[in-house]
Amino acid sequence: MPKRIAILGSTGSIGKSALDVVRLYSERFEVAGLATHSNVDLLQQQIVEFRPACAAVTDPEAAEQLASTKPDIPVLSGPSGLEELAGMDADVVLCAVVGAAGLRPVLRAIEAGNAVALANKEALVMAGRLITARARDKGVDILPVDSEHSAIFQCLQGHDVANVHRILLTASGGPFYGRSRAELRDVAPDEATQHPTWNMGAKISVDSATLMNKGLEVIEAMWLFGVPLDKIEVIIHPQSIVHGLVEFDDGGVLAHLGITDMKFPILFALAWPERVRSCMGRLDLTQIGALSFAAPEVGAFPCLHLALEAARAGGTAPALLNAANEVAVAAFCGGRIGFLGISEVVETVMAGSRATHDDSLESVLAADAWAREKAASAVEALGAGRPDRQARGA
Amino acid sequence: MPKRIAILGSTGSIGKSALDVVRLYSERFEVAGLATHSNVDLLQQQIVEFRPACAAVTDPEAAEQLASTKPDIPVLSGPSGLEELAGMDADVVLCAVVGAAGLRPVLRAIEAGNAVALANKEALVMAGRLITARARDKGVDILPVDSEHSAIFQCLQGHDVANVHRILLTASGGPFYGRSRAELRDVAPDEATQHPTWNMGAKISVDSATLMNKGLEVIEAMWLFGVPLDKIEVIIHPQSIVHGLVEFDDGGVLAHLGITDMKFPILFALAWPERVRSCMGRLDLTQIGALSFAAPEVGAFPCLHLALEAARAGGTAPALLNAANEVAVAAFCGGRIGFLGISEVVETVMAGSRATHDDSLESVLAADAWAREKAASAVEALGAGRPDRQARGA
Repeated sequence: MPKRIAILGSTGSIGKSALDVVRLYSERFEVAGLATHSNVDLLQQQIVEFRPACAAVTDPEAAEQLASTKPDIPVLSGPSGLEELAGMDADVVLCAVVGAAGLRPVLRAIEAGNAVALANKEALVMAGRLITARARDKGVDILPVDSEHSAIFQCLQGHDVANVHRILLTASGGPFYGRSRAELRDVAPDEATQHPTWNMGAKISVDSATLMNKGLEVIEAMWLFGVPLDKIEVIIHPQSIVHGLVEFDDGGVLAHLGITDMKFPILFALAWPERVRSCMGRLDLTQIGALSFAAPEVGAFPCLHLALEAARAGGTAPALLNAANEVAVAAFCGGRIGFLGISEVVETVMAGSRATHDDSLESVLAADAWAREKAASAVEALGAGRPDRQARGA
Repeated sequence: MPKRIAILGSTGSIGKSALDVVRLYSERFEVAGLATHSNVDLLQQQIVEFRPACAAVTDPEAAEQLASTKPDIPVLSGPSGLEELAGMDADVVLCAVVGAAGLRPVLRAIEAGNAVALANKEALVMAGRLITARARDKGVDILPVDSEHSAIFQCLQGHDVANVHRILLTASGGPFYGRSRAELRDVAPDEATQHPTWNMGAKISVDSATLMNKGLEVIEAMWLFGVPLDKIEVIIHPQSIVHGLVEFDDGGVLAHLGITDMKFPILFALAWPERVRSCMGRLDLTQIGALSFAAPEVGAFPCLHLALEAARAGGTAPALLNAANEVAVAAFCGGRIGFLGISEVVETVMAGSRATHDDSLESVLAADAWAREKAASAVEALGAGRPDRQARGA
């Protein structure tokens, strides 16, 4: 019997790659459900090709648009529709929606006993304790799709996490690593979304360019692997071939290497605990030549530091950070603030916030809402001071 | 209770490193037995320091010399004494003797139910099927001490060997890699024993210089991991930081990295299945900078090819190869033949041999004896043709 996969975010970068995987391994996987925010045109094509049992569209207008075409499957609408899809009868729910919007669907999938293939790191950043505790209670697997976390997960197989000396998350450094703050002032959104080694969506590409992504990944790793913050380090590795390393107490280091194509960690998560023969190419180290590593020099990239501070503070601090970052990245992509404005917005929000240790869902969502409002004000304040850049960015 | 370790070859490079490990972790390990071929002076010091229950000296004259000092423990003598020591009451027998002399003691340790930490690859090369079958029957662990095999062993933990696409054994290439055959003609024994990245005994250093060592390691890996020859490859990696890699069917690659110090794989094997906190330094990738890889170009190093041919032929062919190589390396170290003579001797023996598929102990030992005789003749024939070099080498 093929595994039934529900894909939340099927029209995004990860969702499309996941459907490529399903296409390649049609004897192993079938699509149980598909969800998009608003890209109804592509979703319609996917419905025709993959014949899911239902679909969801979180943007209500777009949902209506799809429903009006009278598809022969139910179309769920709005954020609650996305949650309902996550709780449907499926073997694995791949959560590939962007940002805080992933939190409730992940929880719903867990409640329904569906394994979660998690590409949405924001959910764990916001509510890692809650999600991992519920998954443990329900006996549900949370399978990382982020390449770094898939790598660490694979390195830890068969080893006791109590023997971990440290986890090393590799970072390519993104498109701007090595530049000074002055050189970063005027970078445009389309430069920030050109990642040197990975082909990804806009939000994560900008997060990679600010190094916020690596900070979020550190928090994600804490929760996924139950390892304290001070045992997780970031190492610069420009080639993105080594996706993660685990150093054990006895000095031995295991590393995971692979081609920089998200289809590999997606296939790993969907097929788990089986390993499926790849028909998607193989790593040839002799063609790569050299792998290099360096300690991060992040003076020009305050987002990594801000994320680690939020992780250290705990409670709702990571949720505040995440919300501020989401608003700031959207403002940058919309040309309303400059690249350096992203960290400035996050810093302003964090400086004016009071994180609590209560990391219940209600508390986390309240922090999220509060931080979004503060971040919007910070964006406005910044934007008002830069009419020239605003005009050019738009 | 500390683990009781018997060390066969305690005065050699691996044996001394193992005693360093015991010294560092005296609360975990104690020495049950020590054995040397003939270095009685050092063995006496080791007996005083580590207080084993018994000792063995394979050279009968040297054994007599030790016995005459009236030590307060029994001194076993000759090859049978070494076997007796391997069968003593111990938790782990570290077999670090050089060459075919390791075969019978390894079998004896297994018969006695002692776990075997195996640094002697020649035993597995000669009689891999026999050793692994007996270990399986007895439920005895064979723990690799060779850094490459310890690496592969660690990469395979928690993974199904049925999902292995290929095993990659890394090779520094030894001191002469990249040279032409003409440039190798006149290298002296002391050049061949200067390994660029590892500090090792003479036999294995020369084997590394000829690349025979890597060929023997391929055969060793076949038996240790139950993987067919065509799934084991050699890759050149001059820095010797990555000790081995396993590529799985799904394209994911796990690698083991570590400091080039044999104490690490020794500690791993002795402590197994526990991992002990290292007090012997840690790998810092940011200090290493770059790791490079290349496909092997072995035109000037026929020994690797000869070893793979013997592995392919199976039966007694690897035992013939190993015996011829042992004789040839000894002749080279003794200045009786040149560096290129090593592969010539092995090739001559293999060309004139008839390997059988009967790889029983008797058959293997008969092949070993036959090949030694043929190799001795081949050495003589070669040596007669090079009086000048003979004089210089001596």
